[in-house]
Amino acid sequence: MSLVVQKYGGTSVGDAARIRSVAKRVAERRVSGDSVVVIVSAMGHTTDELIRLSTEVSPHHHPREMDMLLTAGERISMALLAMAIRDEGVEAMSLTGSQAGILTDTSHGQAKIREIKPMRVVEGLESGKVVIVAGFQGVSPDTKEITTLGRGGSDATAVAMAAALEADVCEIYTDVDGVFTADPRVVPEARKLDEVSYDEMLELAAAGARVLMPRSVEFGKRFNVPIHVRSSFHDRPGTWVKESAMEQAVVSGVAHDTSEAKLTVRGIPDTPGVAAAIFTALADAGISVDIIVQNVSSGGLADISFTVPRDVLGQAVPITREVAAGKKAASVEVDEAIGRVSIVGSGMRSYPGVAAKMFSVLAGAGINILMISTSSIRTSCVIAEARVEEAARLLHAAFQPPTAPGEL
Amino acid sequence: MSLVVQKYGGTSVGDAARIRSVAKRVAERRVSGDSVVVIVSAMGHTTDELIRLSTEVSPHHHPREMDMLLTAGERISMALLAMAIRDEGVEAMSLTGSQAGILTDTSHGQAKIREIKPMRVVEGLESGKVVIVAGFQGVSPDTKEITTLGRGGSDATAVAMAAALEADVCEIYTDVDGVFTADPRVVPEARKLDEVSYDEMLELAAAGARVLMPRSVEFGKRFNVPIHVRSSFHDRPGTWVKESAMEQAVVSGVAHDTSEAKLTVRGIPDTPGVAAAIFTALADAGISVDIIVQNVSSGGLADISFTVPRDVLGQAVPITREVAAGKKAASVEVDEAIGRVSIVGSGMRSYPGVAAKMFSVLAGAGINILMISTSSIRTSCVIAEARVEEAARLLHAAFQPPTAPGEL
Repeated sequence: MSLVVQKYGGTSVGDAARIRSVAKRVAERRVSGDSVVVIVSAMGHTTDELIRLSTEVSPHHHPREMDMLLTAGERISMALLAMAIRDEGVEAMSLTGSQAGILTDTSHGQAKIREIKPMRVVEGLESGKVVIVAGFQGVSPDTKEITTLGRGGSDATAVAMAAALEADVCEIYTDVDGVFTADPRVVPEARKLDEVSYDEMLELAAAGARVLMPRSVEFGKRFNVPIHVRSSFHDRPGTWVKESAMEQAVVSGVAHDTSEAKLTVRGIPDTPGVAAAIFTALADAGISVDIIVQNVSSGGLADISFTVPRDVLGQAVPITREVAAGKKAASVEVDEAIGRVSIVGSGMRSYPGVAAKMFSVLAGAGINILMISTSSIRTSCVIAEARVEEAARLLHAAFQPPTAPGEL
Repeated sequence: MSLVVQKYGGTSVGDAARIRSVAKRVAERRVSGDSVVVIVSAMGHTTDELIRLSTEVSPHHHPREMDMLLTAGERISMALLAMAIRDEGVEAMSLTGSQAGILTDTSHGQAKIREIKPMRVVEGLESGKVVIVAGFQGVSPDTKEITTLGRGGSDATAVAMAAALEADVCEIYTDVDGVFTADPRVVPEARKLDEVSYDEMLELAAAGARVLMPRSVEFGKRFNVPIHVRSSFHDRPGTWVKESAMEQAVVSGVAHDTSEAKLTVRGIPDTPGVAAAIFTALADAGISVDIIVQNVSSGGLADISFTVPRDVLGQAVPITREVAAGKKAASVEVDEAIGRVSIVGSGMRSYPGVAAKMFSVLAGAGINILMISTSSIRTSCVIAEARVEEAARLLHAAFQPPTAPGEL
């Protein structure tokens, strides 16, 4: 008898047949004796449809009303799922984020969960019901306004709810079998990981693995909620994200990403505060900068390179040029055709040879490394976009993740 | 400077262009200095779409979840309307029924409004905002569950909100110009009434006029809220429904209806309680009976005739047959091809010749009267369905409503 929080995304509840199939799975779990809370996203393209409707009505941004509008999406899917579960002979009730006690801050469209007061969820569970909770939404106790959590919000709802209920597991259902050692579309030899630590999952997610958003992994880590990422199409186990095992893999996975661009400010005079000026201006515009590399060239002039998401390049370039000109830098160069390849593994902490092996593999294939960034359990290289997938395959073949220490 | 509650139905907010056009009208009213609360229904066919989706998912009836599902409809329209009003340069915010303090009983799908505690509406108005409130929905304080009000619910929300706010007027926007002296599709000479009393409107609605549901008129009467029924396509005044004027029309309008069927139980032995048994059994099945006529035929045997909505005939007939058999009545006859034509007018109270004139008009055209039912301000005749529209035209021509006393 466990307490299980299950999360189903928009594709899993995309139409009536899929909703009935999710209902069957949920009902079976309940009948087997477990208590079940289900977090559900809006059906398939509902959110896109509502956004399209809003742009037809108004060219402007109305964050409060947008949240009111978008929260209609989960309301529909959760009510339908509750009906379908009841049809399986299992009592069920749906609750909005507000009814489920998901309390957030006041920022519409990207609210953060502050606290969960799941009184009605607990009441429902105690009376034997499956409780279905709308993902992605909450309420601000300060303003009494409905809020949405932004990208990855439903996963965050699920893990936070599991933490608040002290659930035994948070199951994230998805259209893949779990977390892989690399993207199987690019690296055919990629294998499913049975287990990965929170820290590794955070690095993999940040390095381009799309299966779980960093946000929900952070919740899991902070409250020690075991997360089971698994397929909604079959019953085989997926990947457990949890406290790391005793013996850790040196390399758990290879991740890659081609969504960023590189900016280089050249010929910066050796005066303090240039880097601070650039990154403050970018942060003020809401632009997050990823990898930053600075080196001093001959003559005392410095170069700074950094990466930003390509979709904000149109904002980032003029801001950077303005600051650079003010600081008498020589030039600003833009390179959109870059990508990043990363290796991630908790055991990397104790095995310093890993990064060196990565550089040799890339060098051996004639792949030029433009930037390097490391954490204690990750090494990333920025390279030409055209070589990214090849690099992922080469690194996967070289490390054969999950790599036990003896295999290095 | 008045406080105005405006209600727009599903057709008025059926697409983005119509929402923008309603927004313009609302904003102009606000800019003119009035405080404005808007009650809005779900867009066009949204409710039908959601019902279709629910039948795809489940063949069964889940009242609580159905209310959760359907309330997504107004959530969408109200958020979009708030955006469009803001685009007109007027501050606006949308509120769900629950947020607007619309407190109902616990019956899902057909909840009754118990009380309105419009704190957030008042706050919004005080800060100069247009407040948009979801029609058709509320919350039960006993169960904390979301409820819907059933048929005519948005009109009821509007009039009840106007009563709670002590608004100067409740404007019901619709696709016709107001309340007519007869159905203009059947009686081309029908004229728009400038004014009609609550009681007359109640009788007209009960007799088949579709423009306002009796439910909202009852609210208006009880709390003395002036209701202005008007077109959303132009700015000309419509019909005011309010306390009757000093000099009342003898006949305000002619209404007709063909949605009922007639049941006759023949040869009932003269024992007490037969009528009670029949109508108790029907009421227990939730069937509302309209006109009832009883007469005693020769030999002490009685006949009872009554009308029920045609769409519940399948239930009503077997129930009636069973009770009739138990009471040793001779037979039960069913006539579906009937209709009703009514004349309504407050002045009728003082002019007893009106009913007589109505019967003569029908008799003069060879139209046989099957049943008669009267109230102090209405006379209705049940006749053959095939003659109903003709009868409406003849009566309209004979009385020329609104009929002043001198014109009788």
